[in-house]
Amino acid sequence: MFTKLIVRKLIDDRNLKGLREVLAELAPPEVAELVEELDEEDATVAFRLLPRHLAAEAFEALHSDRQQQLIRAFGNETDRLAGLLNDLSPDDRTQFFEELPGPVTQQLLSLLSPNERRIAVRLLGYPEESIGRLMTPEYVAVRPSWTMEEVLAHIRRYGHDSETLSRVYVVDDKGHLTDDLRLREILLSPPQVRVEDIMDGRFATLTATDDQETAVEAFRTHGYFALPVTDSDGMLLGIVTADDVLDVAHEEASEDIQMIGGAAALDEPYKNAAIRTLIRKRAPWLVTLLFGEMLTATAMSYYEAQLAHLVVLAFFLPLIISSGGNSGSQATTLIIRSLAVGELVKEDWLRVAYRESISGLALGLILGIIGFGRVVLWEQVFGTYGEHALLIATTVGVTLTGIVLLGTLFGSMLPFLVKRIGIDPAVSSAPLVATLIDVTGIVMYFSAAALILGKVLR
Amino acid sequence: MFTKLIVRKLIDDRNLKGLREVLAELAPPEVAELVEELDEEDATVAFRLLPRHLAAEAFEALHSDRQQQLIRAFGNETDRLAGLLNDLSPDDRTQFFEELPGPVTQQLLSLLSPNERRIAVRLLGYPEESIGRLMTPEYVAVRPSWTMEEVLAHIRRYGHDSETLSRVYVVDDKGHLTDDLRLREILLSPPQVRVEDIMDGRFATLTATDDQETAVEAFRTHGYFALPVTDSDGMLLGIVTADDVLDVAHEEASEDIQMIGGAAALDEPYKNAAIRTLIRKRAPWLVTLLFGEMLTATAMSYYEAQLAHLVVLAFFLPLIISSGGNSGSQATTLIIRSLAVGELVKEDWLRVAYRESISGLALGLILGIIGFGRVVLWEQVFGTYGEHALLIATTVGVTLTGIVLLGTLFGSMLPFLVKRIGIDPAVSSAPLVATLIDVTGIVMYFSAAALILGKVLR
Repeated sequence: MFTKLIVRKLIDDRNLKGLREVLAELAPPEVAELVEELDEEDATVAFRLLPRHLAAEAFEALHSDRQQQLIRAFGNETDRLAGLLNDLSPDDRTQFFEELPGPVTQQLLSLLSPNERRIAVRLLGYPEESIGRLMTPEYVAVRPSWTMEEVLAHIRRYGHDSETLSRVYVVDDKGHLTDDLRLREILLSPPQVRVEDIMDGRFATLTATDDQETAVEAFRTHGYFALPVTDSDGMLLGIVTADDVLDVAHEEASEDIQMIGGAAALDEPYKNAAIRTLIRKRAPWLVTLLFGEMLTATAMSYYEAQLAHLVVLAFFLPLIISSGGNSGSQATTLIIRSLAVGELVKEDWLRVAYRESISGLALGLILGIIGFGRVVLWEQVFGTYGEHALLIATTVGVTLTGIVLLGTLFGSMLPFLVKRIGIDPAVSSAPLVATLIDVTGIVMYFSAAALILGKVLR
Repeated sequence: MFTKLIVRKLIDDRNLKGLREVLAELAPPEVAELVEELDEEDATVAFRLLPRHLAAEAFEALHSDRQQQLIRAFGNETDRLAGLLNDLSPDDRTQFFEELPGPVTQQLLSLLSPNERRIAVRLLGYPEESIGRLMTPEYVAVRPSWTMEEVLAHIRRYGHDSETLSRVYVVDDKGHLTDDLRLREILLSPPQVRVEDIMDGRFATLTATDDQETAVEAFRTHGYFALPVTDSDGMLLGIVTADDVLDVAHEEASEDIQMIGGAAALDEPYKNAAIRTLIRKRAPWLVTLLFGEMLTATAMSYYEAQLAHLVVLAFFLPLIISSGGNSGSQATTLIIRSLAVGELVKEDWLRVAYRESISGLALGLILGIIGFGRVVLWEQVFGTYGEHALLIATTVGVTLTGIVLLGTLFGSMLPFLVKRIGIDPAVSSAPLVATLIDVTGIVMYFSAAALILGKVLR
């Protein structure tokens, strides 16, 4: 990027006047991108030169680790720090505070003006992951008795801070939300018409204490750019805008995907994560899964005699346990996503169990028949498996059918189970399901072998 | 839901007048929810009773299978069908057309008014998954020389159809986008000020032919509710709104998650999918993976002699191949998501390879040491593994280290490789990586055994 080269040159030359001029011409996201890419020291130099308004907007677009570095770099310059914090929009400020240790948040809160502090404390009072944390109190509210002319005058006077003007909210004298009006309706109505004349009493709201996922769903259904947030009594508290919700949806999807892959959520872009973070986030799960897998070694030791009699049996073990794991992976990811986006709810488990039993059986039969065919075919062509080939083929076919059915059923039920005990269903990751299925696969396989091959193994 | 009971009762009583009145009072998303939940016949009855405007808005919120059913139910009533299609907003109409077979789209296009048809054909002309397909031409554009008063008069006259009024776009006399203005700036400026006086020449745009993922990124960075779309010459073509982009982000995440789980993308909510669809989407991958797994049986047959000598070796095979698969799953999902959201690009592969080599080695050593410890400990306590326990422990430890390193490296590189040959990186799913690692794990394990246990196996 050309700008980046210029900025780098100006920093190297310590041409702060030139740098200030170049930076002032950039849009906030450009500044943020630049500040992300500079090293800590240069980033601080550049950030200090930004005009006040630009600094706040750029700050909002930075990743939280860079935000924290800059705040530390401000050190004891409480005036500048206070200026910056007061300029941030309340929703982005909440997000920033969320990432800080409690005492630091307290310290920074004390730098806010009484009014901004009141707002910040109120927003931080909502539970984590709740809609309240996404709210901004910067909206325009009007009364039913006002004329369009009065509404427009009100917007001209108080609309400066509003996050969006595409909707204006109508509240009664107790502060209850009673309607929303599109700005276009206001602009397109004659000046003397009253708000109550064009009200239709139809409006969508979010509840402050609800989970942020509900907001994602509501925005997708309604297709609005902003939705009002009320408390349980219908009092208007603030608004949530689509861009913040897009962020939430994005983070949640990333978290789910990382958890499904069997790692803790990374919480930052891959590129920014230190290698030790990458290890720290992945080792615990891998080790846990390894301990789970150790059960397979124990299980197998029970079948030592069978194995010694017929070593060929071991050949198909990887194939069987992996097929169980694969079918479990498919089922669990399908259900985790459906639960995450609200297409399925806890109460659907029985219906899902029914559907997955049928799917699992069908998939199991397909794989079982192929597995059976493979053993028979190899025996015909290469004579690999000796006199008991047909019995071995039957054992492999039956076990494959059983383990795929079981894997599918188990993979689809585990997310419901995990959700019921109050944990994010995404922890029932593909690797977890696969590991739990492995032990079952071994027991199933050798039991089937004992039944079908009977005497041969004794 | 109370309304649902009433509607059901009214349909059962064939009280169409009452039904019409109840439906007319609902918001479009409520109507859509209701229509989704009724059976096909009742849904058609209810939908026919909707006032024209409500019908169009509710139709836009329906899933594509229900949309298609309704269109079929309209049969030859071309007038009503034409009315509905012309009332749909251009972006939602494009999405609906996308789901239809070509000939049906052609037939429906012919029902549009010349103007709407021109718009529809133009939007359908953009490649699938491109930003052009999300565009709507319903925006307000103004000229630099206009005064605020003229701008407001223009909005009052032409703003009816605009999807959003929160921004107004400034174009020069050739149609090039030169700036965007917030509606608030216009409302807050004195009526005689000209557009060019408040222009700052800073604006963000999207390019029509770019991938929709770019739009998701742009909305996340800029935090706007709508972004203008231009062609490569900077001509303003339309706008894209945040709600459509939220839909895109949502669909892409679902698709990725389902593919990572090792199934084809479902393309519809789990609940709506027929059981045969669930089977059809999952069987091909499971069968493909099974064929991959068959290589493990072949690989193992080469080590029959080793196994016969020392059956204990088989005990640790599931543990080793699963650990390789788990570390591969972790790495591949991490990288797939980073590639999908643009945190990583194709060119980053070398850097990722470096980071993942170190992470993989560290993770491998952790698991290897634990694996070694497990074998030694069991031998001490239970005496399970006989005289060669220490050598077996070494074999297990070394192989675990190697396979975790390899799994991590392979899992992180496969998405890059797949992307390079032009396929969605999400196909390098956790099960695919696990299956490919399994064969390697077997070869590695028995090679290590041959080296370390040497004479014992001969």
